[in-house]
Amino acid sequence: MVSARRPSLLVTMGDPAGVGPEIVVRALALPALRRVARLAVVGDAEILDRAAAKSRVRLRFRPVPAERYDPDDEPAQGIPLIASSSDGFDAIEPRIPSPASGRAAARAIQIAAGLALAGRADGIVTAPISKTALQAAGYPYPGHTEFLGALTGAPETKMLFVGGPYRILLATVHLPLRAVPDALAVAPLRRTIEFAAAALRNFKWGAKRAVSVLGLNPHAGEGGLFGDEEDRVIRPAIAAARSSGIAAEGPFPADTFFAQNAGRKDLGVVVAMYHDQGLIAAKRDGIGGAANVTLGLPFVRSSVDHGTAFDRAWRGGARAPDPAGIATAVRVGADLTLRSGRRPLEWTWP
Amino acid sequence: MVSARRPSLLVTMGDPAGVGPEIVVRALALPALRRVARLAVVGDAEILDRAAAKSRVRLRFRPVPAERYDPDDEPAQGIPLIASSSDGFDAIEPRIPSPASGRAAARAIQIAAGLALAGRADGIVTAPISKTALQAAGYPYPGHTEFLGALTGAPETKMLFVGGPYRILLATVHLPLRAVPDALAVAPLRRTIEFAAAALRNFKWGAKRAVSVLGLNPHAGEGGLFGDEEDRVIRPAIAAARSSGIAAEGPFPADTFFAQNAGRKDLGVVVAMYHDQGLIAAKRDGIGGAANVTLGLPFVRSSVDHGTAFDRAWRGGARAPDPAGIATAVRVGADLTLRSGRRPLEWTWP
Repeated sequence: MVSARRPSLLVTMGDPAGVGPEIVVRALALPALRRVARLAVVGDAEILDRAAAKSRVRLRFRPVPAERYDPDDEPAQGIPLIASSSDGFDAIEPRIPSPASGRAAARAIQIAAGLALAGRADGIVTAPISKTALQAAGYPYPGHTEFLGALTGAPETKMLFVGGPYRILLATVHLPLRAVPDALAVAPLRRTIEFAAAALRNFKWGAKRAVSVLGLNPHAGEGGLFGDEEDRVIRPAIAAARSSGIAAEGPFPADTFFAQNAGRKDLGVVVAMYHDQGLIAAKRDGIGGAANVTLGLPFVRSSVDHGTAFDRAWRGGARAPDPAGIATAVRVGADLTLRSGRRPLEWTWP
Repeated sequence: MVSARRPSLLVTMGDPAGVGPEIVVRALALPALRRVARLAVVGDAEILDRAAAKSRVRLRFRPVPAERYDPDDEPAQGIPLIASSSDGFDAIEPRIPSPASGRAAARAIQIAAGLALAGRADGIVTAPISKTALQAAGYPYPGHTEFLGALTGAPETKMLFVGGPYRILLATVHLPLRAVPDALAVAPLRRTIEFAAAALRNFKWGAKRAVSVLGLNPHAGEGGLFGDEEDRVIRPAIAAARSSGIAAEGPFPADTFFAQNAGRKDLGVVVAMYHDQGLIAAKRDGIGGAANVTLGLPFVRSSVDHGTAFDRAWRGGARAPDPAGIATAVRVGADLTLRSGRRPLEWTWP
């Protein structure tokens, strides 16, 4: 049966004080999206019902306990809802991150990750959470990526963006720009390039395609005129990766690399040295045009490319938040699941 | 006469060992481009003839001494050629920057800038030069922007990119990334914002439009979690600019700013903190899609958004370099000239 081969993905509600519940219910109501994957939602039933009412979408949830969830039991109507918490809407304050909202967000992630780790779902798709709320609730993680790393025992995780023509892996993420140059070193950068090569292999993007590494400085340093990290760190890391059989290339000046490759379809993975260098390019098609994918986990995890947008949450009407980002994350998650053959993913190299 | 109202622009040949002469002759051969401006070329006659032959374009030049050049004497056929040097093709080595190639490039800039400064042309459009060659020839400038500043006595120059939906002004340019945070300070950043406002006024882009200032750090520092330059430097500079009547706003996270504004037509000027932050976005439509405009000069100066590309120079055939960038620079230069009313531009504020 074709339908049984659709990937099964668990969608978490995100921080319930933010836009997560609304964008999740609006995405789940899209028939086209449900054709690409068997979707279940993980969250608080009352909050999700409220979000559906606020968003004026007709959506019937089918509550199912986590221990009995089976993606093959796909209901003819309605969306399976795995309750990760049941404190309800009154426990949170809309638009305000709080320990309660952080706890509810964290519980959904824990339940979803546990099911995926047990092989009872192919992957997870996450709505935005608040770092402030997460930490107020006692979870000491800067974001999903690190939290999921801890939950799954992954020794290392990396952030990849899939957007427009690009797949962009970040060598460093949430650091002050001032701290980036000293955070780059040969061994970790070589490991980042290995992650990129493993992604090409796992997701069957073309194992022989290049891992294109950007420079740190303008014009990739222009031969040492504007900085020496290209020579001290990036070239040695590329050479080391090449010595273990990876088609690593670069360092390329970031501005001309993206300009020259904007139209190419056969790019492999691009390794960006820091957050904005990669994400300005990844988001070139607008908010919602890219998905954030965590590398290093045994299962596929994709996420929206935007934050909790507290100011826009729970207002409804014409200002209701756009589900484009979570829809992109579902499509990317489904695609990567099919490509990877649903086996536990391996991130060691070779 | 309509034709007399077309802006007069001087096009320099660039470094003759690079792609400059070829892209210039290929652009000059485009009838559509000659309809937007009265174009004259400044360079070495023999080199330009060689470039035309190599590029297989039919182009007749009309030599005219610099001191007799008058854009109103537009020949019925052919392109006015102002000889800035006459050492010929044998004085240079194709694809190799040298003192001779740097001297020839510099002479073309000096002649063109002198004519524009004297009001005998509306502006100049420059082909790429080599910093290495320029310095080997004894001109101690990192590039056109600083060289033109010195030639015109401009107290300060700024680099603006016009590309896609954006006009992006760089707060810092050719610095190692490591040096960027300490190069940002309140007074110069306020001055950069004033340049942006002066550009909105001079080019009649909408004097009330915003000057949108980007943050330095990921998520514009996320409230101080990833760096403090937003609070220490950028917000005070924005506040100071606002106190002198500029609609400055920000700091915005760079990745989401471009994502949210990719489709907007009513943007003012965006101020980027460093080279790649601005130029990845400015070049989103590919090489040749943006023009580099120098602010601070009394006349309009625009340039290609790429370098000398020595490896691709003087090969001809299918690998002949693309004139899209210089064509964009001519269009942008003509547009800015018409918009500014051809008066000497003023860059003080208010």
